[in-house]
Amino acid sequence: MRGPRPLSGFPEWLPEQRLAEQELLDRIRTRLELHGFVPIETRAVEPLDQLLAKGETDKEIYVLRRLQAEPDSDDAGLGLHFDLTVPFARYVLENRGRLQFPLRRYQMQKCWRGERPQEGRYREFLQVDADIVGQDALGLHADAELLAVAHDVLGSLPIPPVTVLVNNRKVLEGCYRALGLKDTQATLRTVDKLDKIGAEAVRAQLVERVGLDQAQARACLEIAGISSPDASFADAVRALGLHDDLLEEGLAELTAVMRAAARLPAGRTVANLRIARGLDYYTGTVYEAVMAGHEDLGTICAGGRYDDLASAGAGARYPGVGVSIGVTRILGRLFGRGLLGASRRTPSCVLVALPSEEERERSEAVAAALRARGIPCEVADQPARYGRQIRAAERKGIPFVWFPVGEASGGHEVRDIRSGEQHPADPGRWNPPDEDLRVRLVGGDAPA
Amino acid sequence: MRGPRPLSGFPEWLPEQRLAEQELLDRIRTRLELHGFVPIETRAVEPLDQLLAKGETDKEIYVLRRLQAEPDSDDAGLGLHFDLTVPFARYVLENRGRLQFPLRRYQMQKCWRGERPQEGRYREFLQVDADIVGQDALGLHADAELLAVAHDVLGSLPIPPVTVLVNNRKVLEGCYRALGLKDTQATLRTVDKLDKIGAEAVRAQLVERVGLDQAQARACLEIAGISSPDASFADAVRALGLHDDLLEEGLAELTAVMRAAARLPAGRTVANLRIARGLDYYTGTVYEAVMAGHEDLGTICAGGRYDDLASAGAGARYPGVGVSIGVTRILGRLFGRGLLGASRRTPSCVLVALPSEEERERSEAVAAALRARGIPCEVADQPARYGRQIRAAERKGIPFVWFPVGEASGGHEVRDIRSGEQHPADPGRWNPPDEDLRVRLVGGDAPA
Repeated sequence: MRGPRPLSGFPEWLPEQRLAEQELLDRIRTRLELHGFVPIETRAVEPLDQLLAKGETDKEIYVLRRLQAEPDSDDAGLGLHFDLTVPFARYVLENRGRLQFPLRRYQMQKCWRGERPQEGRYREFLQVDADIVGQDALGLHADAELLAVAHDVLGSLPIPPVTVLVNNRKVLEGCYRALGLKDTQATLRTVDKLDKIGAEAVRAQLVERVGLDQAQARACLEIAGISSPDASFADAVRALGLHDDLLEEGLAELTAVMRAAARLPAGRTVANLRIARGLDYYTGTVYEAVMAGHEDLGTICAGGRYDDLASAGAGARYPGVGVSIGVTRILGRLFGRGLLGASRRTPSCVLVALPSEEERERSEAVAAALRARGIPCEVADQPARYGRQIRAAERKGIPFVWFPVGEASGGHEVRDIRSGEQHPADPGRWNPPDEDLRVRLVGGDAPA
Repeated sequence: MRGPRPLSGFPEWLPEQRLAEQELLDRIRTRLELHGFVPIETRAVEPLDQLLAKGETDKEIYVLRRLQAEPDSDDAGLGLHFDLTVPFARYVLENRGRLQFPLRRYQMQKCWRGERPQEGRYREFLQVDADIVGQDALGLHADAELLAVAHDVLGSLPIPPVTVLVNNRKVLEGCYRALGLKDTQATLRTVDKLDKIGAEAVRAQLVERVGLDQAQARACLEIAGISSPDASFADAVRALGLHDDLLEEGLAELTAVMRAAARLPAGRTVANLRIARGLDYYTGTVYEAVMAGHEDLGTICAGGRYDDLASAGAGARYPGVGVSIGVTRILGRLFGRGLLGASRRTPSCVLVALPSEEERERSEAVAAALRARGIPCEVADQPARYGRQIRAAERKGIPFVWFPVGEASGGHEVRDIRSGEQHPADPGRWNPPDEDLRVRLVGGDAPA
């Protein structure tokens, strides 16, 4: 018997995994709302020309076509968004008269890219973005704040410790200008491949494809090697003897962000001049974060400053800064290695047993009484020997089974099926221990 | 200056509307989890042949194509799902060895249909589905339970009262068989248009397109006219003098569901033999719900029993029953008429004022102290006269402004900007009134 098969690159979780994902998202949401970020959602589609104009993922966009559409229908030329930044910039422009700035928003949505699937790279994936967008101007304090928010959110999750690498595009572009390079964008994109292809291949590409001479290529790699857990990176850059106004501006910005980071968890923020981010739209600060022990997975959170993404000509400008958390990438790794899971497979804390089909109404009354006090529960599907009903609860990880019994036989009883202890109980008063009421995230010993 | 424009049929909410939507979804989720429903999510895409095989929406499916894909790439032939039932049935089959049955699941996701947009009909819309799926068999009690769950969930929302109309496909098909009709599916679909096109047009289509004679068409309309808030509908059907085994089975099922409904809110469940549901996959009970005063909007919640949707041949069968809540349809109407909104435009309960850029660190320390005790807040973007900072809070609906002041000048103060009252306060101890801590749903007086 052959059933449907998974689609490569379109991950789906089992119920116990989705429970864990939902708990993780709840924690992210709670932290972001404590920081005053408001949720928004954008449509899944954007006009194809807009998607193609931003970023460098043109090859991998999914285009939509209605099965029976005429060529000039009003929903022609739409594609699925590949990130949440481009749709958000469009949303800001479209609604600018009805929004309050600076706008602090978060967004938890699926994105789609037609990439070749591999571990950590999906065709459909969930991202959580947090951004601050200003009207006309947005101070550099927002770049420092986003870094603090990223640490606060990621630090609240039961995942390995996260280190955020920070750089500033102006530093790199300033250095490249001082070196006399023509195509700074192509240089940036090539240097951005350092982790993937290594220093030797980057040097070769800089020379052969971008047209640098050997000394320039060597200097680019030297710059990319600069890194410090504090503001001392600036001394290393200045030691190179390069002079450029944009470079000075970038050094001042990155220094300010790193100084503010001194108040964050020690050693978890590193100025690293290798970080470039492939996307075109970043103009200043850029971030990339990795999980300790999972550096091979690549970036699990990234972002940066975009001063020009949302602008509508004639002086209307909405500079922003933001970070994206790659939820699917994180969970794919942690689920795959059994490092994260949920304490049970269902929200139900209690299975109310069913003595016979005729007594269903009585079992349902017990369930209603428990629910009225916030205790998630379900009534057994079929009457069966109590041993079978207990095993059904066991398979779902439901900790308690309730036996409704008539007044004559002495009243209700509830059994903790883990310990086997069984006690008389009143559906209007009994409470489970706090730690059993809701599904919990558990690390390392996820249910099989 | 021309900016981006909305896409017809792809609604997006303003932040304060999304806050209201999120609160509504939280309430739905809380109720469903109290009933032991577990969340799952399915991918946005399904193989096109699967989408075309189910339902009757073939014309309106959005097909995906990767911009640079070769014709035989492994992601060719995918379409966006048009509901959550077809993907769920596929998910059940695909994961059947790893799921526990009966499976009670809910799913909150966008769906896509390329329909002509109009009020209440969208190309992208959010649905919440709750289903119970059994292995091999699923008792009729599940049909009654889903009806109770629908009432419980919808009754927990600040929306107009909801009436659920219930029917059973077997009653209609049994009647049609007893009348000697050949094409019961075509008859069902035509009768299903009663609300849209009226009795006379249905009668004409039954005769001209489906091939019924006048007496048969009249009988179909007579059946469709039967309705009762209790189990008495069965007498009206029996008075027609039709005899068929399937009809008897359907009457017994619908009677049992209506008897169980006697425990639900009075008058809010009606057996109505006009209800057919257009989709092919329903095999027994069908539900359709409308909001009082908004009957013109059509169905805001619908569903039914599907015994054959998830089957993998060779005896593997997963009968199910479920309901779908049309969240976007409900909210589109209530937002559009100002009948639902959020108490403010941001999660922030407090705006911490910024005396000067140099004092940002002190304002951030106040914010951190408030957040540590669960109070959502944000620091003002720029130093400005306090009057301006208060007006900025007002525009976002933030109820409190915090003035951090040095020890010398007498300590911190907090101002309720609605009343203008201002008091000394300690960031480590002050609490807002409970009703101001979180964003609340408000009816009828949504922020403009």
